[in-house]
Amino acid sequence: MSEIKFDALCIGNAICDVFAHVEEDFLVREDLVKGAMRLIDTDEALRLYDKMGQTVRISGGSAGNTAAGIASLGGKPAYFGKVAKDDLGEAYTHDMTATGVHFETPPLVDDVPTARSMILITPDGERTMNTYLGACTKFGPSDVDADVVAASAVTYMEGYLWDPEEAKKAFLAAADIAHNNDRKVAITLSDSFCVDRYRSEFHDLIKNGVVDLVFANEHELKSLYETADLDTAISAARESGAVTALTLGSEGAMAITPEGQVKVSAQKLDTVVDLTGAGDLFAAGFLFGLARSYDHQTACELGCLCAANVIGHVGARPEKALKDVANQGGFIV
Amino acid sequence: MSEIKFDALCIGNAICDVFAHVEEDFLVREDLVKGAMRLIDTDEALRLYDKMGQTVRISGGSAGNTAAGIASLGGKPAYFGKVAKDDLGEAYTHDMTATGVHFETPPLVDDVPTARSMILITPDGERTMNTYLGACTKFGPSDVDADVVAASAVTYMEGYLWDPEEAKKAFLAAADIAHNNDRKVAITLSDSFCVDRYRSEFHDLIKNGVVDLVFANEHELKSLYETADLDTAISAARESGAVTALTLGSEGAMAITPEGQVKVSAQKLDTVVDLTGAGDLFAAGFLFGLARSYDHQTACELGCLCAANVIGHVGARPEKALKDVANQGGFIV
Repeated sequence: MSEIKFDALCIGNAICDVFAHVEEDFLVREDLVKGAMRLIDTDEALRLYDKMGQTVRISGGSAGNTAAGIASLGGKPAYFGKVAKDDLGEAYTHDMTATGVHFETPPLVDDVPTARSMILITPDGERTMNTYLGACTKFGPSDVDADVVAASAVTYMEGYLWDPEEAKKAFLAAADIAHNNDRKVAITLSDSFCVDRYRSEFHDLIKNGVVDLVFANEHELKSLYETADLDTAISAARESGAVTALTLGSEGAMAITPEGQVKVSAQKLDTVVDLTGAGDLFAAGFLFGLARSYDHQTACELGCLCAANVIGHVGARPEKALKDVANQGGFIV
Repeated sequence: MSEIKFDALCIGNAICDVFAHVEEDFLVREDLVKGAMRLIDTDEALRLYDKMGQTVRISGGSAGNTAAGIASLGGKPAYFGKVAKDDLGEAYTHDMTATGVHFETPPLVDDVPTARSMILITPDGERTMNTYLGACTKFGPSDVDADVVAASAVTYMEGYLWDPEEAKKAFLAAADIAHNNDRKVAITLSDSFCVDRYRSEFHDLIKNGVVDLVFANEHELKSLYETADLDTAISAARESGAVTALTLGSEGAMAITPEGQVKVSAQKLDTVVDLTGAGDLFAAGFLFGLARSYDHQTACELGCLCAANVIGHVGARPEKALKDVANQGGFIV
């Protein structure tokens, strides 16, 4: 069996985030569901962009943010995702490799452009995402480098990969390689609407042991188990056989296993600027913790610390080294 | 004489800012002068970019930031500056027009790319700028739309325009048109190193009445009058004949006129995230105030409020409407 070289391999839609601050009534006028991600085509992307004010552009993508977070903690992440050979794609590649992420998925040439998500931040810090998938629709099984999967302690993938047709196949191929090499497989449920779209398939992934570890927030877990009651959803998660890492916003986070559960409190925050990436950075801390053999409680605590850090500014990537933040928080990383 | 349509016309180098956080020793290793702007060529831009970590990309350029600030206050600004017809240029144009800036300078086609400045933010919030001028080197007198100059209460221009050869000619042409139409002309000294490069020419501009209003910070004013003593520099400014709007960092700001001077205190700030744009946004508040016939003290106060707002986040553009910030601060805008 090959040696472990990467703490985690993250696979997802490689997206450039385009942020703008808007008032609540902008969402009402545009008939947008606050906090959700919707997929849009080129025409809608252009139409909405014209209505957005001053923008900030930062590399994003859920699993990409998690990989960047692990690198920022001083870990060794790898990433698979498809950008185009254009300015946004080159900036994306720079941001990954410059922060220490192993990222060698070949870019798409002479085809659709790099994906972008127009993220509207309301005054409460909530974000509403409008995503044009572009080059992500061309990500497929041939982009799965088996050697990297085999060399990664865990392969962590977005539920969002169920949206582009070929990406789902890549997800399943990567999971197969990981398990054949005795590695773990994790999924993030991504979004309660994403769960809505693929509920039965996500259930099958868990039931059939395709995934060992599930990341979810409260809305996603309730959606997965079709209940309005969080305790009911937690019981179902406990009985699912998988380990569930559950984020609870300002209430903190939980790790739920067949044997029981642990809960940790969230960091106290003065101001919430932008919630984008909170879940992604929780996953970075939790996965980093697992790779360092932390117990579930400590891994949750590091996850909460990383999530708190990214909420304080616009963008889903750490601005300062999370390694320093973690050390100041009493973690030895 | 034509009607006044614009509170201010801002003219400058149209630059996309590429921000990264670095430690102090990065500047030492790269032999960079902290807080300064240096011009770099393509090779150096690529070399430095490779060494920078995670980036944030936001439209910038000193006068561009000022125009965006005036728009954010609810004013009516115009802008002249040269971008290329590429992704960065299109984002720049979007950011200007979407926030309400009149911006119609034709973009450069099939030539050098849009300018970018790699801005390194150290933990103290200071920024060190490395600028590749690209398309800005093609901005010239033919880009000066005389109708817009004539319709602007004041034409506000960067000292940085002295760097690209043709831009200086555009500066002088615009000043001429403004004065022929009984409008005011303002310059920002931009940077103490910029003053160093063009000191005698800047003196001539003031002495010959080409500019009526000078924006400077402490370092720039001392450099202009070649003194280490601020009071000596202030006396020289008072005798220069021009009005000087002087920013003093955490000490606030002053307006210096031949008749005397007023000083206002800075806003109290908990944390300084990024000083980029502080001077540009002071100018936005001050110019907006002048256009609304505020006295110098009130214009300085609004300038300080705008500057304080932009220091709290990465980037030199307002994230939220300055109109609301100003109204909460007791200004009726």
